[in-house]
Amino acid sequence: MALFGSPGKLSGLLLRIGQCFSAAASIGFMVSAHGFFNSTAFCYLIASMGIQVLWSFGLACLDFHALRSKTNLHNPVLVSLFVIGDWVTATLSLAAACSSAGVTVLYSRDLGYCRSPQIPCSHFKASILFAFISWFLLAVSSHVTFWLLAAV
Amino acid sequence: MALFGSPGKLSGLLLRIGQCFSAAASIGFMVSAHGFFNSTAFCYLIASMGIQVLWSFGLACLDFHALRSKTNLHNPVLVSLFVIGDWVTATLSLAAACSSAGVTVLYSRDLGYCRSPQIPCSHFKASILFAFISWFLLAVSSHVTFWLLAAV
Repeated sequence: MALFGSPGKLSGLLLRIGQCFSAAASIGFMVSAHGFFNSTAFCYLIASMGIQVLWSFGLACLDFHALRSKTNLHNPVLVSLFVIGDWVTATLSLAAACSSAGVTVLYSRDLGYCRSPQIPCSHFKASILFAFISWFLLAVSSHVTFWLLAAV
Repeated sequence: MALFGSPGKLSGLLLRIGQCFSAAASIGFMVSAHGFFNSTAFCYLIASMGIQVLWSFGLACLDFHALRSKTNLHNPVLVSLFVIGDWVTATLSLAAACSSAGVTVLYSRDLGYCRSPQIPCSHFKASILFAFISWFLLAVSSHVTFWLLAAV
């Protein structure tokens, strides 16, 4: 089975590394924004991106190991585990990115807080952008593994 | 193929009706909340739930027709259409529910707006609850159709 982005392939490894880096970038931008802890949604974004970094890093290591030792990762139990984990992390990431985006839109358009220089809206926006990128990459991985599970 | 909730089955029809009703309830609670239009996220929730009502109602009619005339809806082209539509609507609904939830949590926990009686936080919460129920039912349908597509 040579599906793009499936576990144990180079494309799969690259997808995982991309997820890991964009989630880390999202955390970095959010932590560097002054006063992020005033909003629950931003704290939740950091927690959820933290989970995603751990998950993607773990799977990247597994892919790397499988590539080096030419192990086949396509057994039903392992693929079901990947599917459940991917789906849960993808849903959490999308929820975190969207709730933060909702709060940022409220700040910038509805309450007009972004006009004051004390609120670092550009940091919030960069962090949310990276969270969406990381969610998108995870969604690709998640669909590929779900497809593999159905075809196994 | 007798998969629970697949198109053209009674369980599939019930899932669609459930989605349609909970999305409509979500719109109803939000519209009845005074001053919802002050937040972009709440307006987006109404738009997204509107799309979901249309989509679920259309598919419920199709399921009803298939049940009455005993047509088989499991051809690859039709199922791919269902998968793409379900996935897009499910992502939009989750995004809308989460961004509204982010704003409501900001109102109630971080800014303390809910203590004032002018802001109808209970309506917002009921609307978001129904949006999440409707997203969950749509996610079930979406996974079943994706599974069908992979197995066709």
